[in-house]
Amino acid sequence: MNLSDVPTPGLILDRRRLVANTKGMAARIKAHGTALRPHAKTAKSAKIACLATKSGTRSLAVSTLLEAEYFLDHGFKDLLYAVCIAPDKLDMAAALTNRGADLKIIVDNPVAAAAISLHSEQHQVLLEIDSGEQRTGVPLESSQLLDLARVVHDSGRSRVVGVLTHAGHSYSCQTASEAAKVAEGERRTAVDAAQILREAGYDTSIISVGSTPTAIHGKSFEGVSEVRPGVYMFQDLFQAGIGSCRLDDLALSVLATVISSNSERKTLMLDAGGLALSKDRSTEGTTFDAGYGLVADLRGDFIGDLRVNSVHQEHGQVMVSESKILEQLPIGSKVRVFPNHACMTAAAYNTYYVIDGDTEVVETWPRCNGWPEKF
Amino acid sequence: MNLSDVPTPGLILDRRRLVANTKGMAARIKAHGTALRPHAKTAKSAKIACLATKSGTRSLAVSTLLEAEYFLDHGFKDLLYAVCIAPDKLDMAAALTNRGADLKIIVDNPVAAAAISLHSEQHQVLLEIDSGEQRTGVPLESSQLLDLARVVHDSGRSRVVGVLTHAGHSYSCQTASEAAKVAEGERRTAVDAAQILREAGYDTSIISVGSTPTAIHGKSFEGVSEVRPGVYMFQDLFQAGIGSCRLDDLALSVLATVISSNSERKTLMLDAGGLALSKDRSTEGTTFDAGYGLVADLRGDFIGDLRVNSVHQEHGQVMVSESKILEQLPIGSKVRVFPNHACMTAAAYNTYYVIDGDTEVVETWPRCNGWPEKF
Repeated sequence: MNLSDVPTPGLILDRRRLVANTKGMAARIKAHGTALRPHAKTAKSAKIACLATKSGTRSLAVSTLLEAEYFLDHGFKDLLYAVCIAPDKLDMAAALTNRGADLKIIVDNPVAAAAISLHSEQHQVLLEIDSGEQRTGVPLESSQLLDLARVVHDSGRSRVVGVLTHAGHSYSCQTASEAAKVAEGERRTAVDAAQILREAGYDTSIISVGSTPTAIHGKSFEGVSEVRPGVYMFQDLFQAGIGSCRLDDLALSVLATVISSNSERKTLMLDAGGLALSKDRSTEGTTFDAGYGLVADLRGDFIGDLRVNSVHQEHGQVMVSESKILEQLPIGSKVRVFPNHACMTAAAYNTYYVIDGDTEVVETWPRCNGWPEKF
Repeated sequence: MNLSDVPTPGLILDRRRLVANTKGMAARIKAHGTALRPHAKTAKSAKIACLATKSGTRSLAVSTLLEAEYFLDHGFKDLLYAVCIAPDKLDMAAALTNRGADLKIIVDNPVAAAAISLHSEQHQVLLEIDSGEQRTGVPLESSQLLDLARVVHDSGRSRVVGVLTHAGHSYSCQTASEAAKVAEGERRTAVDAAQILREAGYDTSIISVGSTPTAIHGKSFEGVSEVRPGVYMFQDLFQAGIGSCRLDDLALSVLATVISSNSERKTLMLDAGGLALSKDRSTEGTTFDAGYGLVADLRGDFIGDLRVNSVHQEHGQVMVSESKILEQLPIGSKVRVFPNHACMTAAAYNTYYVIDGDTEVVETWPRCNGWPEKF
């Protein structure tokens, strides 16, 4: 099947770029003497997780317990659920552990720590530390860290196995040197937190850091046991905008068809709108504003500076500067839209159409979306 | 099952409000002497479509051919695919027709019209007219309308069965009188276009208009054969912001759990982020900015003016003005977040947890997401 036969909108993954991105990150982290635990939140695919863990251990971070279950079903046992656990989710976490998962959960507050301790099953717990993002995590400079560890260990069932931090404020960095500084803060925080726990006699086997910008720009990962980037596998316009990659690295795009055009207003309409592209506008805050995505031809070459300027649910409107572009892209033409934020865009699809640098679809790979349900 | 037992994030639908919204719209359109063709793009559910068509014909508008297939499988035959047809989609449209669908497709350009005419199967075609939104549709004041009709009829197989317009610029109206004016323009455009076609001998059985604001604020639907609102079934903060409904009408919310909080920064973190709520920020342009959604308790009563101020993939951050709110909402508490844009938010879920005005889950209903795939 050729790309021109794929129904639109459709999610296109360029395996050649994916492999280059995953190999590049694996080599980089290995050269720093630490381990890579790819975050599966972006790709949500066992096929892709296999590629990302090819040269290392089969360890993953996940963003939902549904992902944890999916990856366990696909043979990935070493899983880290990298969102603060809610007390209600302990039953499902324990069920996964009982099915063979080597699951780590994270906590940053005494209420959830007490729920873990009191839970009937054993849990392996990482304490989340705030390294400057101010999202979740306890501050390093406080008694909270050791208090939390004590609460987790209270019943003698569950135990602390290390620390985790995520320097998500690296997403606000505009230069490599800024990101390197944030990366050093992320590393320092994790290492110092582990030191405090170690001195108090706790297990600190896992010292986990990571985001794509800090993994790419960090100068040292000394003392860190693992790094957890996620979006690096696909990259996206936002990551290109903050210097985590080049536009040539972007592996994910949305195939769309021109369904209408207007020569007076110099606009064309794609059948990829707010649902197909997501309403993420994160490039607005970077060095270039890509609207809802940059428009490329079937081979992935950008068409001038065309972007999706506005979206409705199933319509994406592109403004063109020259009428000749409307002639180049008559009704029925196919284009590829590179998204602002790969994690948001991919979530609308159940299937990747996989290409290998050209326009031939070589495979289709399923994705795992959503959250656990109960009836 | 009680709401407190539903896994989070989870999609909650209040049937009492849903029924009131669907009954209200059905009565309103009936009183105007025209027919309701609910747009299924928001609800994407056969159960909900049954409620919305209870007192009328079982006619639906759909936003994708996957929806068309899904609703056909659930016994809805009279379907209108309300997005300009791409030539490549004619095979699937014809397959649905051959399976028994009374499917109408729409067109606004000669390339697609020619593809329809040349296609081996018969199609029922509506011509899309622009009534001021400037998205898709031919202008009324041009020869394009009759040109299109001629092209569709060229081979003698397919035929025009009417006109369609969508006054989506009603979403920019700030008052009922502005929306009423846009509604009158929408009606007038459709009726005038039909008149032109009728005088030239074409079938104009279907004269289709609609959006939620124009359906709600329109003073007359004279000459129109059907109205196609969609989001009115659930309503949302954006529709409340532009005066299409009251906050008490909102039927859709996302159940979330408090997973972290910070008393110094006066923030709490929900396990509903950019994927669970969508990144839609449409209330930014209305009379109030609801962030990524307003926060309510389990019964649906808003908690002060709490809103989700920022989102990450699986985290939604809420800023509170008073520390006592953090005490009222300890870790593990459940809240309901009412979304900006129901169509975008619902699309992340496969299941509605249905309540009846209180906190008891009485049923679960499946949704149909995504687009047709091919392997």
